Amino acid sequence: MEQDKLVTNTEIKVRFNECDPLQIVWHGNYLKYFEDGREDFCIKNGISYLDAKVQGYSTPIVKSVCEHKLPLKYGDIFKIETIYIPTAAAKLVFRYKVFCDEKLVCTGETVQVFLDKIGNLSLNYPQFILDWKMKMGLE
Amino acid sequence: MEQDKLVTNTEIKVRFNECDPLQIVWHGNYLKYFEDGREDFCIKNGISYLDAKVQGYSTPIVKSVCEHKLPLKYGDIFKIETIYIPTAAAKLVFRYKVFCDEKLVCTGETVQVFLDKIGNLSLNYPQFILDWKMKMGLE
Amino acid sequence: MEQDKLVTNTEIKVRFNECDPLQIVWHGNYLKYFEDGREDFCIKNGISYLDAKVQGYSTPIVKSVCEHKLPLKYGDIFKIETIYIPTAAAKLVFRYKVFCDEKLVCTGETVQVFLDKIGNLSLNYPQFILDWKMKMGLE
Amino acid sequence: MEQDKLVTNTEIKVRFNECDPLQIVWHGNYLKYFEDGREDFCIKNGISYLDAKVQGYSTPIVKSVCEHKLPLKYGDIFKIETIYIPTAAAKLVFRYKVFCDEKLVCTGETVQVFLDKIGNLSLNYPQFILDWKMKMGLE
Repeated sequence: MEQDKLVTNTEIKVRFNECDPLQIVWHGNYLKYFEDGREDFCIKNGISYLDAKVQGYSTPIVKSVCEHKLPLKYGDIFKIETIYIPTAAAKLVFRYKVFCDEKLVCTGETVQVFLDKIGNLSLNYPQFILDWKMKMGLE
Repeated sequence: MEQDKLVTNTEIKVRFNECDPLQIVWHGNYLKYFEDGREDFCIKNGISYLDAKVQGYSTPIVKSVCEHKLPLKYGDIFKIETIYIPTAAAKLVFRYKVFCDEKLVCTGETVQVFLDKIGNLSLNYPQFILDWKMKMGLE
Repeated sequence: MEQDKLVTNTEIKVRFNECDPLQIVWHGNYLKYFEDGREDFCIKNGISYLDAKVQGYSTPIVKSVCEHKLPLKYGDIFKIETIYIPTAAAKLVFRYKVFCDEKLVCTGETVQVFLDKIGNLSLNYPQFILDWKMKMGLE
Repeated sequence: MEQDKLVTNTEIKVRFNECDPLQIVWHGNYLKYFEDGREDFCIKNGISYLDAKVQGYSTPIVKSVCEHKLPLKYGDIFKIETIYIPTAAAKLVFRYKVFCDEKLVCTGETVQVFLDKIGNLSLNYPQFILDWKMKMGLE
């Protein structure tokens, strides 16, 4: 298993329109950053965008958690670490760590499931995910 | 023609997450308010939601203009006046006036066109719009 | 303790611009709905907006959780139940339940802390919260 | 005058959460792209972020226009051309051209004014803008 391939680092800059009247990033916008991290992970690890329909499957988010340690401000350049967490169940679990100036700003997690073409929950991993896990040395 | 039916008033309250670090509504969020006004207009005037696919047509925005006179702040309750502007061409033109405490905050305009099922621009009004204009006394 | 005062129901309608290419509400937008619910709770329960600076305190969100059971679509009218959860620690904890057509769509939780004027974490409840809890029959 | 310094090109990728149920970028999100372009322009041209408070001035947007020729979709990588338009009046005018695959997707314009510390409209350019214009060879 090539452990190092399962973490992706993405650099993002805080936009003016992402900040609120307290002059910090509005908490809900971290889910956009998580999505940026997740997408970057997918590109760098050779898996199609998991947020849209892929091979007949959609992968809706069924859970998201975000814990804030420090605020981010307009213009801050930060790094998001996106970590793929293998699970036995047919789910996609990602954990996130946001760092700015080497300090931990926020941690989070998202859980996605697979819905087939007619919207039914898939109890098993779709073949394209099994293939990807195999390729990545994840059993 | 029942002129008074062509204007709809909608009351909206400014949300915390719509305001920016200058403590005013971020300018791009007025397009959300215009959409709220447009949707309210459609409901009150018996026409299906124009923002989604209706009868095989989609009605994308091709132009939007927004002019700001005064800022809105978190918690402000304001009124948006949505005015339907009849046009000869197959377009939907709405004008907007945002008022808070009787003062004009902002004016705007959006223009939508009709795309048919395969995405081609419709040069004529779709039948359901002609029917609606007839019903509303708009020639 | 007047238990029934600690739950607020708020009706909201899904906007077009809150939905994603899967034609469902983008998951991050539920945090906006939670904010709508929280604000409505505050108004109905006679406490100033907790999202902005109040009496020198700001109340940033330090944790948010959202679990999705069913999707919401454009035009859906749903109800959000906002429940205040009393805690011994100087925190504001709200739980949320989103219902549409009597079905549970989503549950969630937010945790807020109190920062004083110079941004330090308040280990005790500010006086205005103690007063409010007293008034509400909360210990 | 170094004309070529007055245009900045910025590459941006369409995010999933920026697209609507019609599977295209929601029209209001182009104002975020314009802001990205404007900010990139400021950085590349040695002028402080114009969207926040700078040297005691704030620079609110008083007008924005957006005209759409073609849609953008999730995952599209596009280029935004941000063009500074010198004006005699104390305003900041930027024009924008969005290109994807060499095709013109959208054009737009924003107008900003200068408000001083107490929120009054500045009828003359602030000194830091005059200095910047001088440095850039713009009279």
